[in-house]
Amino acid sequence: MSASEIEPFHAIAISRLAHQMKAQGRSIIHMEFGQPSTGAPAAAIATAHHVLDTDGMGYWESPLLKAAIARRYADLDGVEVDPERVILTCGASPALVLALASNFQPGDRVALARPGYVAYRNTLKALNLVPVEIGCGAESRFQLTAAHLGALDPAPAGVIIASPANPTGTIIPAAELEAIAGVCHERGIRVVSDEIYHGLSYGELARSMLAFEPEALIVNSFSKYFSMAAWRLGWVVVPTEQVQRARAFMGNLFLTPPSLSQHAGLVAMDCLDELEGHVAVYRANRALLLDALPALGLASIAPPDGAFYIYADIGHLTDDSLAFCEALLRDTGVATAPGVDFDPVDGRRFIRFSFAVSTLEVEEALRRIIPWFAARAAA
Amino acid sequence: MSASEIEPFHAIAISRLAHQMKAQGRSIIHMEFGQPSTGAPAAAIATAHHVLDTDGMGYWESPLLKAAIARRYADLDGVEVDPERVILTCGASPALVLALASNFQPGDRVALARPGYVAYRNTLKALNLVPVEIGCGAESRFQLTAAHLGALDPAPAGVIIASPANPTGTIIPAAELEAIAGVCHERGIRVVSDEIYHGLSYGELARSMLAFEPEALIVNSFSKYFSMAAWRLGWVVVPTEQVQRARAFMGNLFLTPPSLSQHAGLVAMDCLDELEGHVAVYRANRALLLDALPALGLASIAPPDGAFYIYADIGHLTDDSLAFCEALLRDTGVATAPGVDFDPVDGRRFIRFSFAVSTLEVEEALRRIIPWFAARAAA
Repeated sequence: MSASEIEPFHAIAISRLAHQMKAQGRSIIHMEFGQPSTGAPAAAIATAHHVLDTDGMGYWESPLLKAAIARRYADLDGVEVDPERVILTCGASPALVLALASNFQPGDRVALARPGYVAYRNTLKALNLVPVEIGCGAESRFQLTAAHLGALDPAPAGVIIASPANPTGTIIPAAELEAIAGVCHERGIRVVSDEIYHGLSYGELARSMLAFEPEALIVNSFSKYFSMAAWRLGWVVVPTEQVQRARAFMGNLFLTPPSLSQHAGLVAMDCLDELEGHVAVYRANRALLLDALPALGLASIAPPDGAFYIYADIGHLTDDSLAFCEALLRDTGVATAPGVDFDPVDGRRFIRFSFAVSTLEVEEALRRIIPWFAARAAA
Repeated sequence: MSASEIEPFHAIAISRLAHQMKAQGRSIIHMEFGQPSTGAPAAAIATAHHVLDTDGMGYWESPLLKAAIARRYADLDGVEVDPERVILTCGASPALVLALASNFQPGDRVALARPGYVAYRNTLKALNLVPVEIGCGAESRFQLTAAHLGALDPAPAGVIIASPANPTGTIIPAAELEAIAGVCHERGIRVVSDEIYHGLSYGELARSMLAFEPEALIVNSFSKYFSMAAWRLGWVVVPTEQVQRARAFMGNLFLTPPSLSQHAGLVAMDCLDELEGHVAVYRANRALLLDALPALGLASIAPPDGAFYIYADIGHLTDDSLAFCEALLRDTGVATAPGVDFDPVDGRRFIRFSFAVSTLEVEEALRRIIPWFAARAAA
């Protein structure tokens, strides 16, 4: 693997600058990263206190947590999942590594949407798989379709789908998921579905790919809806015939996720009032941002169905989104992520706002950036 | 990757049986797993309580922890390490994945000792690398030597060394480490050194490979000496020219380790009195077991210099170590690990005792197993 093939997250450079500016006394609003600004649910934290005092915390997998995760698929998607099919991981990132490494061989081609979460492309490369990026524009709301997958020649070995998506927040409708499942089944394409933003929807709920393709590998985590990003707890649901293989991969490559996080995560799954409160905040933030788009001069976006992002075309203002984000940050204290983190081709003319902050922060950010965007447009 | 290529840990099956027996009221002594039976240091737990109440725990890398780890190499090995070379991971397992995936290409041959930690072989296979196992017997105290590496034709792309080793606890002497570094330098063999048992020594301290080969990748964690196994915190020290690549791999494949564990781990590094108390217990346990070997009829072992294992030849009693461990557990309640977990060739006639338990438990285990071994030998 040559160093040049995997790019760093440019949002990290933006964030580093934001922290430097904060240390110099500047007021910063962090809209650059995809993580909740809220902490874990209160009851989960209380449980963590108790476990710290009473448990030696050896390597462990929580059977109750696996059962609760399985039950969530029954409750939300009407799909029965044997808890043994749930493999607990240190977050969605190693869950994706596990899904890819255990299903594909070096040189295998795996399709994915562009724009998309940069780690998909880079993890594929790190595992010596070949990303087949499909440029998806506003016409498909930046999402892969069954038609895209049907047109690839030859058929790829696999596909990564993401709904709601990062950076756009768009959701693949149920009928399209079903069509994708059909094409993949027909063409022998293994589906890996990243469902990390499930639970964060502002219209229809996103459906799990499990409802349409029982053989899909489903990646998810406690980092977004459950507001437990740096507790490092995620999972992958594998097909029944892959359970032994996935367990062997997990035991050898990663061992178990943090014991404390498993105890706390189980409790978090019952804290729906608190978690839905976060969703209500995101919903208000999303509405504020969508309302402000005309004042910002941003016409071309796909209104996000879920997640907590707005991905906006700024092509009328710049063709260097990294420099644009840096200037925006220096002038206003509002940190955002440059599109190049999500799309190496067209990302130079996009930025991503994360609205997983407080509503007060969104209001203050808009007060600062609306005149800044106006001045840029006039320049 | 075919499912059959990666074997599960058989010790997990033994442990599962042990837990079933315990649920049925049997008294069980857990000597099957390589983890401390003690918890994290008290001050680390106190810090975790404080952090739970005061920190939102977003994605984070602790600069102070990286600096403290770097300082440890200066203090113990006289080697200056730039803290930027320390990449924090969710334990030693992903640290090894990172070291291997970022340094080798599919098909590359990587040498390692047999017996050894089974995850080395399986992680190599999962990454489509080719393990070159070198059978190491009592004559080299089950360790790789410079002579072994000099004799391989062609030279492998890399080597994994482990000192103190699992399952034997033997340490590679400083002079031999230097010789290994020389051969690897000369033949262009990249060294990955697993130093997870550093700090657990009963004679001379194990030296870091960094003192002899500055370009080596050093894997370590808080799981053994620091008694924080399921907090999932480890690190890899990479050469200066690999820092950007390693950070990119980490950010894409794994993100950051648990924030809470980083806060607690930093405090644990100052809890040397408590941690050395654990080492004193292991030292007493080791002496008890070594004294009991004649009564057990176990002549052929390499007395462990470090770690908390005794790897014993039971070839006069069985050639099926898994069945042997199961019978020993059923009859005495003492759980051990079968040699087949560490050596697919000769492991059928070895078992591994972990003495990371209390001294009372070692005493009780010996009371139970000495007559059992005697009866087996007489049968």
